[in-house]
Parts: sequence; structure tokens; C-alpha cells
Amino acid sequence: RIDGQRLWDSLMELGAIGGTAKGGVCRLALTDLDKQGRDLVTSWARAEGMSVVIDQIGNIFMRRAGRNNALPPVMTGSHIDTQPTGGKFDGNYGVLSGLEVIRTLNQHKIETEAPIEVAVWTNEEGSRFVPVMMGSGVFCGAFTLEHAYGATDVDGKNVKDELTRIGYIGEQKCGDHPIGAYYEAHIEQGPVLENADTVIGVVPAVLGLSWYDCTVTGFESHAGPTPMEIRKDALQVSTYIMQEVVAIAHRYPPYGRGTVGQVQVMPNSRNVIPGQVKFSIDLRNVSDETLNTMHEDLLAYLEQTRQKTGLRIELERVSYFPPCPFHPECVGNVRDAADALGYKTMDVVSGAGHDAIYAARLAPAGMIFVPCKDGVSHNEIEDAKPEHLEAGCNVLLQAMLASAGA
Amino acid sequence: RIDGQRLWDSLMELGAIGGTAKGGVCRLALTDLDKQGRDLVTSWARAEGMSVVIDQIGNIFMRRAGRNNALPPVMTGSHIDTQPTGGKFDGNYGVLSGLEVIRTLNQHKIETEAPIEVAVWTNEEGSRFVPVMMGSGVFCGAFTLEHAYGATDVDGKNVKDELTRIGYIGEQKCGDHPIGAYYEAHIEQGPVLENADTVIGVVPAVLGLSWYDCTVTGFESHAGPTPMEIRKDALQVSTYIMQEVVAIAHRYPPYGRGTVGQVQVMPNSRNVIPGQVKFSIDLRNVSDETLNTMHEDLLAYLEQTRQKTGLRIELERVSYFPPCPFHPECVGNVRDAADALGYKTMDVVSGAGHDAIYAARLAPAGMIFVPCKDGVSHNEIEDAKPEHLEAGCNVLLQAMLASAGA
Ligand SMILES: NC(=O)NCCC(=O)O
Ligand SMILES: NC(=O)NCCC(=O)O
Repeated sequence: RIDGQRLWDSLMELGAIGGTAKGGVCRLALTDLDKQGRDLVTSWARAEGMSVVIDQIGNIFMRRAGRNNALPPVMTGSHIDTQPTGGKFDGNYGVLSGLEVIRTLNQHKIETEAPIEVAVWTNEEGSRFVPVMMGSGVFCGAFTLEHAYGATDVDGKNVKDELTRIGYIGEQKCGDHPIGAYYEAHIEQGPVLENADTVIGVVPAVLGLSWYDCTVTGFESHAGPTPMEIRKDALQVSTYIMQEVVAIAHRYPPYGRGTVGQVQVMPNSRNVIPGQVKFSIDLRNVSDETLNTMHEDLLAYLEQTRQKTGLRIELERVSYFPPCPFHPECVGNVRDAADALGYKTMDVVSGAGHDAIYAARLAPAGMIFVPCKDGVSHNEIEDAKPEHLEAGCNVLLQAMLASAGA
Repeated sequence: RIDGQRLWDSLMELGAIGGTAKGGVCRLALTDLDKQGRDLVTSWARAEGMSVVIDQIGNIFMRRAGRNNALPPVMTGSHIDTQPTGGKFDGNYGVLSGLEVIRTLNQHKIETEAPIEVAVWTNEEGSRFVPVMMGSGVFCGAFTLEHAYGATDVDGKNVKDELTRIGYIGEQKCGDHPIGAYYEAHIEQGPVLENADTVIGVVPAVLGLSWYDCTVTGFESHAGPTPMEIRKDALQVSTYIMQEVVAIAHRYPPYGRGTVGQVQVMPNSRNVIPGQVKFSIDLRNVSDETLNTMHEDLLAYLEQTRQKTGLRIELERVSYFPPCPFHPECVGNVRDAADALGYKTMDVVSGAGHDAIYAARLAPAGMIFVPCKDGVSHNEIEDAKPEHLEAGCNVLLQAMLASAGA
């Protein structure tokens, strides 16, 4: 069994880097704070005698040798970048659970047949740089290293320069790295487990996701003298599209999701009719076919709106991954471990994307969910109970031992 | 008659300060560029032998003595601050027309009975700092100097510090300054004159205006796992209010106006359901009673939306001025001058606020409009014809001479 207090203390220490007044964390990918977090985690890994390798996209692989190092490692991991108003647990829990597994094995001098690795994936959140889950995506070949390097934040800074700046651009080729099996522990980020008073979520699948940038171009002019009838107000037209995004999600329950999270109005002056509005669209569903129907619905609505308003409306898909079912073997190992430890379990489909869906393209993969307070994540008040975090980490330990061979 | 080429050249020279690639100007109030513009205009005034006085809110008064300097000056003026994506003519035309009047009088050695003054009012646009028409507002006592000093931009910089920084905080007490009559020449900023193929707009009145900040507070959470049914999406609720603002304007034609120009979404991340949205509301009408009805309609809609959604919705009125009818004497002088010069005229109610409405509280006031291309203003492509600008300036000269006594 793992040491719940040690896990909690590490979570709090890492959470202090970029910690906010409201108890959350703001540690965007590839910032100075991200570097500080990486430095702390790798120092902990080295203290446990692990080797540390960085690849070209800045993924960190921290390895504990097995008896047979010719075997591919059994891997766990997650990310330590956060949302602008994020929490202490999202991602960080997965990385530090992996570290706690290692500390427990070292403490009890337990050897494994296969080596064990803990991965810290670069820019999972996709908040500062798109695509989301960038590090694991490049690792599994979902998109190229060059594509990822070229991604820019709102200030025009790109991933390659920022990786170089913080000293986390490594030499290892991305994906030059076999994996035996992959597990990831994570807070649920939704209300299902808490509502069902259940400690362990066994994750059969992850919703597929489509992300878009939508740009509506009208004509900017003066808010006073311009008669209502002749306006080409880009914001007004955008509001109808924003409402349709939500309507589409409601049309495909129970796993349909539709969100507009990011909006930029130009020129953003109170007495100027907006000439251009850019906003993000996030659509999700559990079936790829339904996700595609949602995509088609969106395209149809935009075409209709173009014809009705005469305004230019552009749509670019900037991220996409299909729904991801996990491997029966790993899902079974998670369920068995939880049962053996006496934790109540239930199946929870993940609404959030995780690095595990990209790892799943290279090796059998599975995930372990634990409840978070009120189902809230991507919010500074994100919270989780120490005993739940401990339970999830115990399940991780046992599932990994099942795959790695004790 | 004034020199149209000289006027045009000065407009182009001033327009180059903060000039944009698209031919517009970005010279926000109290920036370094505003200082450069002020330096240029005052240097021109001094070259014409005018005295230059700055008051405590940074208004500039450039004076040409009359035969009887005990008489209050006949004043003209406008502003040289611009929108973030503004044009070369809005405001600048009024100031430089005043200067051209002086140059013409000097060139022809014409004396006036009363002194003549050209004013450059501080922060008319209201884009960087609210309230709008700040300099003339403080001058006429519409709000206090302290209130204006405390206004902050989005970066938290305040008016007093910025005035001090650019060296335009003067010693003269605001309003310690009688005025005999006030005229302001301006581009129409709307399509009426151009559509009617008319050169001179005689302005009987200016629409009243109410500006608000509206804040909708929901609950931020993760765009993936959070079921549609339990979301408190501040942006979705905001879109309905944004549509109502426009609907209210349509309900009170022909002078009803409703605009949302500025929006800020928090935390503005594509996979976070917005927890809070702040946006501006601009309502206008020609009757104060109708403007008040529009205000009541807005309040009623917000109350209804609060009850329907349960979200917190706050509304703060940040600027207000009632509709302003101009003085029959000045309106008559403008019309007579245009008639005598042989220009076609029509009455045009101003949809935009102008410094003249505050000057009108202290002295008889009137305005002269000239057409602008496609009625477009608050846009970098704002444009006007040299012959129209010349015509407006000739009317200004004659109207001022009528008030000042030649
Ligand atoms: N787990 C998580 O927050 N992932 C970010 C990608 C997503 O929006 O699903
Ligand atoms: N003329 C002008 O653009 N004034 C700014 C104030 C307003 O929005 O009416």
C-alpha cells in the first residue's frame, strides 16, 4: 500500500508553484512556473534513483529499472501544466501517483520484472498552445513534431522557443520508446462518482473531441450614428452561433457536449460595433458517428447563417481525436485491483481528454478515476479528498504490478 | 474663405502620428502618441501667435486675441484622441478646422471683436478611459475632476498619472473660463448626408446616451465532463442579454441604438465553461423619456433572466448624458453661413456624442457636419472628401465671425 500522507504532501508542495489566492494553480505550459514544477518533480525522481530522459517535445520519462530491462516499461503518467484558473489535482495527481508508486516500491524493496516509468507529458491542457495533449500526441504520432513546435500562444510565442527557453527541449526522438502497458490515475473532473458515493471509477472510454476556431467578420462602425438596419455586427451574429453550439450538444444526449470557452472581440471598444469576433468551439461525444453528425449540424447552421446575414463566417478545425475505448486487459486490471483492495467501483466514461488516449495507440491502456469535490475541475476551487487520492494510487500500484510482474 | 489644401495637409500630418497600415489612426487618449499629437498642434498654434493654456484635466485652449479681450471668447474645438482602430478625421477635423480659421484670419489680417479660442478636449472617445467626453465633461461640471482623475484603463493606469506622465496636466482650474458661443465642425459618422448628396449638416440635437457595464457570473468548470444540464455558463446567458440590447434598440425607432462593443470572458480558455463574462452596453435615443424606457426594458429583461437562470447578473451605469438640443442662435448662424456660401444643407441629428453637448451647458452652441465615406467612422477606413472638409471649415469661419463680430 502506498503512503497517502506522502502523496498529499507532494501534491501540496507542487501545487504551491503557481499557487493562487483562491487555492488553485496557474502554471501554464512552458512558462517559468512550468519549469519550476518540472525541476521539482525530476529532483524527486532522481532522489529515488530513477533515470530521467527528456524527448524533443519536452516529455519527461523517469525510469526505475526492472529485473529484465529488455522488456518494455510499464508506464504511468499525466501532466503538470494547468489551466489559467486551474486546480492542484488535474494532471498533477497522475504524475505524483506514479512517483508515489515508485517511492512505495523502493521503500518496500519490491522489484518488478519489467521496468516502470513515470511520464510527464508536455502541454496537456491545450490552454496556452493548441493542439491539446501535445506531448503525448507527438509521442504517438497523432501529429508531427514540427506542427507542435510551430504552435503559438496569444502573444505569438511558439512552442519550440519556449521549450528551449525553459531548458526542456530534449534530444530523444519522440516515440523512440516502446511501452508495455499504460495506466493513468486522474480526478474525474465530473460529478458521477461523487453523486454515486463511489471511490474508484473504472474508465471504459474517453469522449471524442473536435475543437474549432470560428471567425465572424462584419463591419466595424460607430455605435451612435449607424442606424440599426444597416449594421453588420459581428458579435450579434456570433451570439446566435454560440447558442447553436450548446443546442447541438443538447440534441445528442447523454454524452453530447458543446462549449464556447474563448472569445476575442475586435476592436473591443464600447462605442464601436464589433467588426470581427473570433471564438472557440468544443464539441464532444462518445460515438465518432454522432460527433460527426454534430460537426455536420454545425456546418449546416453556419451556412444558413451566412446566407441569412451575408457576413463572412470561417471555421477551422484545430484539434480532433475520436472517442477512445481502453484495452480490456488494462480495464480489467484496474477493476480487479480495486475489488481486491475492497473499494467500491463503477464505470465512468471520461468527458475530458487525457494523455492516456494517445498512449492507447501504442500499448494497452487504462485509467483510474477518483472523485473530485462537486465534480468541479478547471476551476481554482477544484478539490479532492486525501483518502480518495490514496485509494486511486493504491489501485494504480496494484494494476501496474499486475502488468509489470512482481 | 479658408485654404482647403492647408487644412488637408495638416490633417494628413497629424494623422501620421499613430497612423496604421490600413490608413487609420490609433492614438488613444494620454498615450505617448497623444502627447506627440498635442505637441504638434500647440506648436502650430504658437506659430500663429496664439497663447496656449492647459487646464487641470489636460484640455488645451489656444487663443487669438480680439479687439475687446474683456469679452468671452467665441470657441471652437474637438479632440485628437482616437479609437483603437480609428480614422484621421473624427475629432481631428474639428481641431484643425479651428486652427485653419485662425490661419485664415491671420493671413487676411482680420480682427474680431471677441477673442477666438480653439480647444483640444481630453479623452473624448471614452475608449481607453470612461467617462466619454471627459475633458469637456469636467470643464462644464458634468462630473468632478476627482472622478475623472480616478478613471483607469484595462491595465489599471489612471488618468491623473497618465496626464502627468505625458506632461499635459495644467494649472488652470477646469471651467474657470467663460465662453461666448461654441461651434464644432465634425464628420457626420453616419450615412445621412452622403445618401442625400448634401454637403453641410445642420445639427439640431445629439442623441442621449447610457453606458453600462454588465457582469454575468456563472460557475467555471470543465467543458468535457460537465453534463449540459448542470452547467452555469456565463457566456450563454450573456448571449441572450447581448441580443436583447439590440432588440431594445429596434423597439424604439428611428433613433434607438443598442450596441455591445466590448466583451471580456473569464477565464477565456477553450475547454473551460466561462465562469464570468463582463461586457459593455451602449443605449441611445433622441428623447430622454424613450432612453429611460429603454433603460427600464433592459432592467426588466435582466431581472427576468436572473429568475430564469439563477445566475448573478450585475449592471452598473458608467456614463449618461441626456439628449442635447443646440441653441437656435448658433444653429441659425450655421444654416445662414452655409446658405450664404451656397452649400446645400439639411438637418442631421447626431448619433455620436460630442464635446459640444457639454459646451452647450455653458454657452449657446451648434455643430456643423460634413459627409464621410459610406457613413463609416470608428474604423480605420474612415474617409472624407477634401472639398467637403473645406466647405465645413468655411461655414465654421463664417458662423464664428457672426458670433465674434468682425
Ligand atoms: N483532463 C483534461 O483536463 N484534459 C484537457 C483536454 C480536454 O479538454 O479534455
Ligand atoms: N464623436 C464620437 O465618436 N464620440 C464618442 C462618443 C460616442 O460614442 O458618441
